[in-house]
Amino acid sequence: MSRWDRAALEALDKADPLAAFREQFQFPDGLIYLDGNSLGALPRRTLARVEQTVTQEWGEGLITSWLGAEWITAPRRLGDKIAEPGELIVADSTSVNLFKAITAALSLRPERSVILSETGNFPTDLYMMQGIAAFSGGRIRAEAVHEDAVLDRLGDDVAVLLLTQVHYKTGAVRDMAEVTRRAHQAGVLVVWDLSHSAGAIPVGLNAADADFAVGCGYKFLNGGPGAPAYLFAARRHQAQAMPVLSGWMGHAAPFAFEDCYRAAEGIERFLCGTPPILGMAALECGVDLLAEADMAAIRAKSLQLGRVFMDLMDEHVADHGFTLVSPREDPRRGSHVSYAHPQGYGIMQALKERGVIGDFRDPDVLRFGLTPLYLRHVDMLDAVLAIRAVCETRAWDDPRWAVRAAVT
Amino acid sequence: MSRWDRAALEALDKADPLAAFREQFQFPDGLIYLDGNSLGALPRRTLARVEQTVTQEWGEGLITSWLGAEWITAPRRLGDKIAEPGELIVADSTSVNLFKAITAALSLRPERSVILSETGNFPTDLYMMQGIAAFSGGRIRAEAVHEDAVLDRLGDDVAVLLLTQVHYKTGAVRDMAEVTRRAHQAGVLVVWDLSHSAGAIPVGLNAADADFAVGCGYKFLNGGPGAPAYLFAARRHQAQAMPVLSGWMGHAAPFAFEDCYRAAEGIERFLCGTPPILGMAALECGVDLLAEADMAAIRAKSLQLGRVFMDLMDEHVADHGFTLVSPREDPRRGSHVSYAHPQGYGIMQALKERGVIGDFRDPDVLRFGLTPLYLRHVDMLDAVLAIRAVCETRAWDDPRWAVRAAVT
Repeated sequence: MSRWDRAALEALDKADPLAAFREQFQFPDGLIYLDGNSLGALPRRTLARVEQTVTQEWGEGLITSWLGAEWITAPRRLGDKIAEPGELIVADSTSVNLFKAITAALSLRPERSVILSETGNFPTDLYMMQGIAAFSGGRIRAEAVHEDAVLDRLGDDVAVLLLTQVHYKTGAVRDMAEVTRRAHQAGVLVVWDLSHSAGAIPVGLNAADADFAVGCGYKFLNGGPGAPAYLFAARRHQAQAMPVLSGWMGHAAPFAFEDCYRAAEGIERFLCGTPPILGMAALECGVDLLAEADMAAIRAKSLQLGRVFMDLMDEHVADHGFTLVSPREDPRRGSHVSYAHPQGYGIMQALKERGVIGDFRDPDVLRFGLTPLYLRHVDMLDAVLAIRAVCETRAWDDPRWAVRAAVT
Repeated sequence: MSRWDRAALEALDKADPLAAFREQFQFPDGLIYLDGNSLGALPRRTLARVEQTVTQEWGEGLITSWLGAEWITAPRRLGDKIAEPGELIVADSTSVNLFKAITAALSLRPERSVILSETGNFPTDLYMMQGIAAFSGGRIRAEAVHEDAVLDRLGDDVAVLLLTQVHYKTGAVRDMAEVTRRAHQAGVLVVWDLSHSAGAIPVGLNAADADFAVGCGYKFLNGGPGAPAYLFAARRHQAQAMPVLSGWMGHAAPFAFEDCYRAAEGIERFLCGTPPILGMAALECGVDLLAEADMAAIRAKSLQLGRVFMDLMDEHVADHGFTLVSPREDPRRGSHVSYAHPQGYGIMQALKERGVIGDFRDPDVLRFGLTPLYLRHVDMLDAVLAIRAVCETRAWDDPRWAVRAAVT
């Protein structure tokens, strides 16, 4: 008899303090959505808010809505809901914010030359480092070392360390406080990418003495496709860190239309262009909804979903060639669980046809995002049963999936 | 008897080949909206498209909509609707695209060191230049000279000239073809800011042999508040121009998740982060609507609206202290007309209370945007009569406007 039979899982769902949140989201009938770590689901409240933004604020208020509907303060208002007030703004994409955060950190360590990261970090993190190095004309070097070698590489030539708190592929959690402490000992500033952690695990930027951070609005914040991203800069750095992307919205007096850039005093100096208001409106709904949930409960349920999922995989598909990629130990695991399988791509396509959506990452990794706000414990069982059915029927072996789609 | 009495203007409206477009936009009752050069009005079709994007594509399609709803190709699809196919992408903000275009041009002129512009250019253009220079560690200099001195300053130290085709404050048009020709003679590449020209006047990038251009989606393209912006790079430059903002969406194989950046072959190399889908959906409605209109008709009506407006200002408020800031000659004037007035700020506030919306730019400029797709010739008369009423009653003299709002 399985520990996680349907009755046991239904009992967990009944006792789940977050269970009511599921009703706050729209879902296609019968779908098991294990990809909230790539694109979060749609909060039901979002449509009305976006409609209001379009028809009332834009259509009726027109230009006056920059003040009248508080568009102009949206980057800071949303930021104050995500982190400590005055330390985070919502703006641009994660990639652009990576550029801002890395160059801001470089401006605080002018005598140092290396941007350090780990191989296998999310590609855009590495690419943005490389772009900065290429543009610097040899002044700055981008260096990525094996994840196990990062701390040993911290030396007095390193200006900035760029790491992701929860790894996009493996779901492994970095100890933000300990890594930051080690980096600071070496005089190195740290930029944390929170894309797979904010909204999924307690982050604790100031408890970890974090310097800079960036992250994504469309995963666990449920802000919608291509939602605006965010940038955190610790208050102690704000006055000295110089924005390279010195756009008018980061100016001390944007509407004075001066010829010379003067950075705004606080976190607003990391704004650049005009804020994307439709995206902001949708993101605010996701952020508000998340704020109604208890983060400790989110973390507890996320870990439990992970344990249940891994137990069920052990029980039902042990003989089918899956290798666990994610850490099994709770403290080291984020909110998604990944497995490697030689037929990973085909398996994921076959699962999608059966109404189980996860995603695939080259070369062979299946990712299953376990989002506590809208998943039930019984979904873990139904997902694993679908995986077993795919394996037992070799449904991955389908000519339609012989050529991989460019977007996975 | 005035040349432009109401009957004459109504006759012009009756004969207007663009008259039917007005019905394609939503407006508050009775409002005369002369600020489409700051935020374009709402196309009626936009709401349904945004609703579909939210509820169907995001809510039902979830992650599969990146391919299924063609989100991933939106930056290029919209770009192909705005310019020649393969030379323009829609992405990020104008400010961020300025950074991309300037640094791309710099990468093509590595032996030169100056980014040149004119004083009084739109602030974010100047600020982005200054940020690049500051980050370059002395390698690059940002220099702004008087508008009359720009062409004489073109020398073999200048890598990039950054100019705006239609000036944000005065509405003056730069001769793109002639300036570009002069710049190329000196070996200088040009980045054109089209924010106040695209959708308002014929641009003709390739006819002018343009190198790079950027512009804004929320003015004459009617894409909504903070709509995505765009970047043009002439095909001949694409293979050599290196993106500094080298994000994953500009990679040759974004979903191969490689550690090293390899720029995409074509215009896609200037993508950076994940595209903002809600903003893209709204912008596409505005772009599609604009594409249904004849650009020559738009230009002709825009100029006529300008002539009518200036004639009426001469006739009705000649004694009230307004100084025309915009060029009176048609070829040199864009799609907005500006006047200086010592009481400019108060006058604009009083006009807004009377249902006439323009905007104010420091220190004393009133801007009146004359957008041909949704304005009537009679609106010019009603607007000028409102201006006269404000002047005759000294309605600018109101304690509510003693302190200027931070956002104007």
